[in-house]
Amino acid sequence: MSLLLRPLFEKTSSTYTYLLADMKTLDAIIIDAVDETMQRDIAFIRELGLNLKYIIETHVHADHITSSYLLKRYFTQAKIVLGSVNEIMCADILLNDGDILSFGVYTLSAMTTPGHTNGCMSYVVGNQVFTGDTLLIRSCGRCDFQGGSAEKLYDSIQKIFTLPDETLVYPAHDYEGRTMSSIWEEKQFNEMIGLNVDKQIFVSRVNKIKLDLPKKIHVAVPANQDCGAKKL
Amino acid sequence: MSLLLRPLFEKTSSTYTYLLADMKTLDAIIIDAVDETMQRDIAFIRELGLNLKYIIETHVHADHITSSYLLKRYFTQAKIVLGSVNEIMCADILLNDGDILSFGVYTLSAMTTPGHTNGCMSYVVGNQVFTGDTLLIRSCGRCDFQGGSAEKLYDSIQKIFTLPDETLVYPAHDYEGRTMSSIWEEKQFNEMIGLNVDKQIFVSRVNKIKLDLPKKIHVAVPANQDCGAKKL
Repeated sequence: MSLLLRPLFEKTSSTYTYLLADMKTLDAIIIDAVDETMQRDIAFIRELGLNLKYIIETHVHADHITSSYLLKRYFTQAKIVLGSVNEIMCADILLNDGDILSFGVYTLSAMTTPGHTNGCMSYVVGNQVFTGDTLLIRSCGRCDFQGGSAEKLYDSIQKIFTLPDETLVYPAHDYEGRTMSSIWEEKQFNEMIGLNVDKQIFVSRVNKIKLDLPKKIHVAVPANQDCGAKKL
Repeated sequence: MSLLLRPLFEKTSSTYTYLLADMKTLDAIIIDAVDETMQRDIAFIRELGLNLKYIIETHVHADHITSSYLLKRYFTQAKIVLGSVNEIMCADILLNDGDILSFGVYTLSAMTTPGHTNGCMSYVVGNQVFTGDTLLIRSCGRCDFQGGSAEKLYDSIQKIFTLPDETLVYPAHDYEGRTMSSIWEEKQFNEMIGLNVDKQIFVSRVNKIKLDLPKKIHVAVPANQDCGAKKL
């Protein structure tokens, strides 16, 4: 097994960045890299001698600023990747549902999973799914900005739930220090949207949630629509 | 593959707790559980319907208080486990080098790895090693209290380095959000104690490090010598 998979945590926004690499060819991808931990990530990629092919976002984040634009300045061959719904001009590749990217012998398969934002994507690599803010551990993303829709989120999570039960779930965040889950666990134990929650109940439940806006939203969203370049 | 392995992070002390279970028999163990995240851990164990067999410590921690005594009140069949050098009266099982505990079809094999403290243990489960504060990611434990010894730490880490290169390393802490490593990586890239660092240089380097004492040391060490019972 030559797949390297490293969850990397950013404390301020409780975000998980994921570095994946084929350790035979050294081709690598990074998902949801954060500006605050960019130097850590660069050091790690360089140390392992990886060829960073793709800098991938699950969506345009509202709670932190991506390091994608800056990372690309360090790893000039890398391509910035988002879902096509986002219409992000700074992206090199805009993915549609079912599109595939490869790194070494591994493939990343794109799933459109709108709901938290309209442009949210999830990504499947082998036995793993990276669910962004769509499916969280025992929870799910909020739907009250950036084209969010509880109806769409419900359908997207049902789509994720068609993956095999043993698929490991790696979300973009966890606020309680949990690092991963599985499709089986979320179907069984996710009280927001497990197998026994129907769409109407879910939508009504999500739409009732009142949360403060993320502190950085007015900075992070425009910055992230420019792949983090506005920080320069 | 029915091994569940879940790293669980505690933010205040940047500690990793590890829950492992055989998902066929539901027998489980927990390594380095922390008082602050006990409710999370209890909820998770209960939700999965696990039979917690062993509550295991890599060592008597100085930076946080273990939840082991309290966990045992919730999971009364569980045994508290430490390395025998600690002479901890509240432990049910004191392990020596090479001792084995089983949970379902899996085994945990104990390695004495003194140095950070004199009673430090590492634990091997399949392709994973749980190194406590002995071997950290690109770093290692300090040696300036609780019978610490840089000479012993060097030898202990060399012992850990005899594990296969592909063994995954799960430490008790990481302060930069990294979650895991491998024996190969630490041999190659650990500047404190990689393959090219000889014992004399390592000892002199470690003994020169000046760090403040952990904030909680005067509370945590006596509490942990009583398995966390002093909190009651």
